[in-house]
Amino acid sequence: MNDINVMIKNDPKLECDIAFINDANFKLESGETLKSLKIAFKTFGQLNSKKTNAILVCHALTGDQYVAGNNPITGREGWWSRMVGPDKPIDTNKFYVICSNVIGGCAGSTGPKEINNENNTIYGGDFPSITIKDIVKAQSILIDKLNIGKLFSVIGGSMGAMQALQWSIDFPEKISNIIHIAGALKHSAQNIAFHEVGRQAIMNDPVWKKGKYFDGNERPERGLSVARMIAHITYLSEDAMHRKFGRKLQSRDIISFGFDADFQVESYLRYQGKSFVERFDANSYLYLTRAMDYFDYEETFKKKIEFSHKPNNHIKYLIVSFTSDWLFPSQESKIIVNSLNNLSKQVSFLEIETDKGHDSFLLDEPQLDSLINGFLLNNFVKNDE
Amino acid sequence: MNDINVMIKNDPKLECDIAFINDANFKLESGETLKSLKIAFKTFGQLNSKKTNAILVCHALTGDQYVAGNNPITGREGWWSRMVGPDKPIDTNKFYVICSNVIGGCAGSTGPKEINNENNTIYGGDFPSITIKDIVKAQSILIDKLNIGKLFSVIGGSMGAMQALQWSIDFPEKISNIIHIAGALKHSAQNIAFHEVGRQAIMNDPVWKKGKYFDGNERPERGLSVARMIAHITYLSEDAMHRKFGRKLQSRDIISFGFDADFQVESYLRYQGKSFVERFDANSYLYLTRAMDYFDYEETFKKKIEFSHKPNNHIKYLIVSFTSDWLFPSQESKIIVNSLNNLSKQVSFLEIETDKGHDSFLLDEPQLDSLINGFLLNNFVKNDE
Repeated sequence: MNDINVMIKNDPKLECDIAFINDANFKLESGETLKSLKIAFKTFGQLNSKKTNAILVCHALTGDQYVAGNNPITGREGWWSRMVGPDKPIDTNKFYVICSNVIGGCAGSTGPKEINNENNTIYGGDFPSITIKDIVKAQSILIDKLNIGKLFSVIGGSMGAMQALQWSIDFPEKISNIIHIAGALKHSAQNIAFHEVGRQAIMNDPVWKKGKYFDGNERPERGLSVARMIAHITYLSEDAMHRKFGRKLQSRDIISFGFDADFQVESYLRYQGKSFVERFDANSYLYLTRAMDYFDYEETFKKKIEFSHKPNNHIKYLIVSFTSDWLFPSQESKIIVNSLNNLSKQVSFLEIETDKGHDSFLLDEPQLDSLINGFLLNNFVKNDE
Repeated sequence: MNDINVMIKNDPKLECDIAFINDANFKLESGETLKSLKIAFKTFGQLNSKKTNAILVCHALTGDQYVAGNNPITGREGWWSRMVGPDKPIDTNKFYVICSNVIGGCAGSTGPKEINNENNTIYGGDFPSITIKDIVKAQSILIDKLNIGKLFSVIGGSMGAMQALQWSIDFPEKISNIIHIAGALKHSAQNIAFHEVGRQAIMNDPVWKKGKYFDGNERPERGLSVARMIAHITYLSEDAMHRKFGRKLQSRDIISFGFDADFQVESYLRYQGKSFVERFDANSYLYLTRAMDYFDYEETFKKKIEFSHKPNNHIKYLIVSFTSDWLFPSQESKIIVNSLNNLSKQVSFLEIETDKGHDSFLLDEPQLDSLINGFLLNNFVKNDE
């Protein structure tokens, strides 16, 4: 990949670095080609002299490169600042953490919101379909450019877990271990169904215009907001919703007998929808949910791993699931663990008991923190310090 | 109620009877009043001379009076024709079955789609908020008009179960037993959340116009279709979806790398959404989901039953739940059973093992058929034949 012309520039507005790959001829799984690529990324900590302490954190569906520190788009803290930073579980005093916005995303990397250099117009609905494999391939170009021969770890939850797994299939020689949280070998029928309803909400919004809404002043915010509300329900567990909201009323003592947000859970969901449209692009939501839907190693995982791993290649796997996650149930993680065990791979597995649902990996879950911290330190001390 | 002026006319187009109650002054739980009422209903079988064989079947959220026979709106068989008819589990050779469209509905009963006699315009968004209690109160007027002093049974699943329970609270002296299928004492936070997203999809549709879409030619079909798709996912179980669709592709061998319905589950949901808008009114969907959300006897059920049942009043309860129903989980039914047991009420309970989810009561579930048939015949033989 070193023959690719990559230029890294700081973007002061986005408060991150951007890798411009101008003669990429980046072939996508669909067969289409992106002539040039932009990858927006942030780094935390220092790469050590042996270049053995680099960790790639992969974000989930609606995440971005702002894993820690300030997120200039939202004005809030990064999405995993609990986890990543000095003296945090992923300790940036020790590790060099890289987090890049996936291609197809909307925080600076090449995606439907960006300009297509070939015709100087915004891609919109003309952006080609992308897959998790494409996302990881773009990340690998960035890692090459940063002169990191081997990542110490690739870590991700949900869509991030899909990327971590993809790294272990496509670039096993370039990683030492992966931490795979709340993921699965495939996107299930029910998950595809929820994504499809979200996409229909967006594509049914008359403002969407087959993705060409950038010509006008309006964005398909109504559709995107409904899509977010649907998804948000699936990120929580029923128990968590019950505990958090129950049937508690919002700012009133009695029901209003109308369609205002009577219940706190309604008001909460409306807020989730409303705030999401301020930071996310509707087309990106379409492309990335589709990439997740297309993810499927159910039948081929063992073969892929067997085929791609050289005999002396010993990736360590940490697989984590949450008991109340009904989007990516524990059972799905156990299938991965069984496959890896059958291949005599080094795999650790923890099913964390929690009622917080799929979103547990983003929430205060001390068991996850100590698990990740311990796994990284144990393997780092042994191998590379 | 016999001082209310009720006139029953056959509606040849709707292929059902309609009870017109012109001086109803029907006071709703919200405090508002409906001056007049229309209740569209169908009957099956013959009322016996003692009037002891009448069964009221209550329909679910998107159901109607066409429980069996032809549904002239859809051109298809009634929604429970498997269950109701000659020699069927609810045997119309023996029982006189009444099924009425709930008020707030859209199959001929007073609802947002109907004309407000007071100003000769379609109610639309001006229709007052209704509750399950209001729905049952309207049914009781119809039953009075039919000169049925006591219903042998009130039967319903889902929103129909809510109505059956409401009958046992509000009119215990007018019923002999209830069959309560896939219901709960309250609508849960998660259920409210799913309903709220559906409502937002409808109300975000620019065609909705605060419910006043009847002025124009368009209906908020896009929003309603998305609402139906969301709800439909909750009616199935994950296992059923997996078994039915898995990741099977629709009419193609490989994925299309686009936003067409690649997967069968997508195509199925789109069809569900599309066909639903042809038979259902968006405003009715808003009002009826709201009525379900407002249903809540969690805290008060025991007291209500204790208070309303006279000492010599022995309603028999049959409570049925399905193991894979995650919308109205079995646990919710068990709470009802426990409450009734604590009050020394006569209650039978069966949790049916099935992977078909909430919709099991509408699907081919032989155990449910024989259970309902047995319960009705046992109690009927003993009491009233």
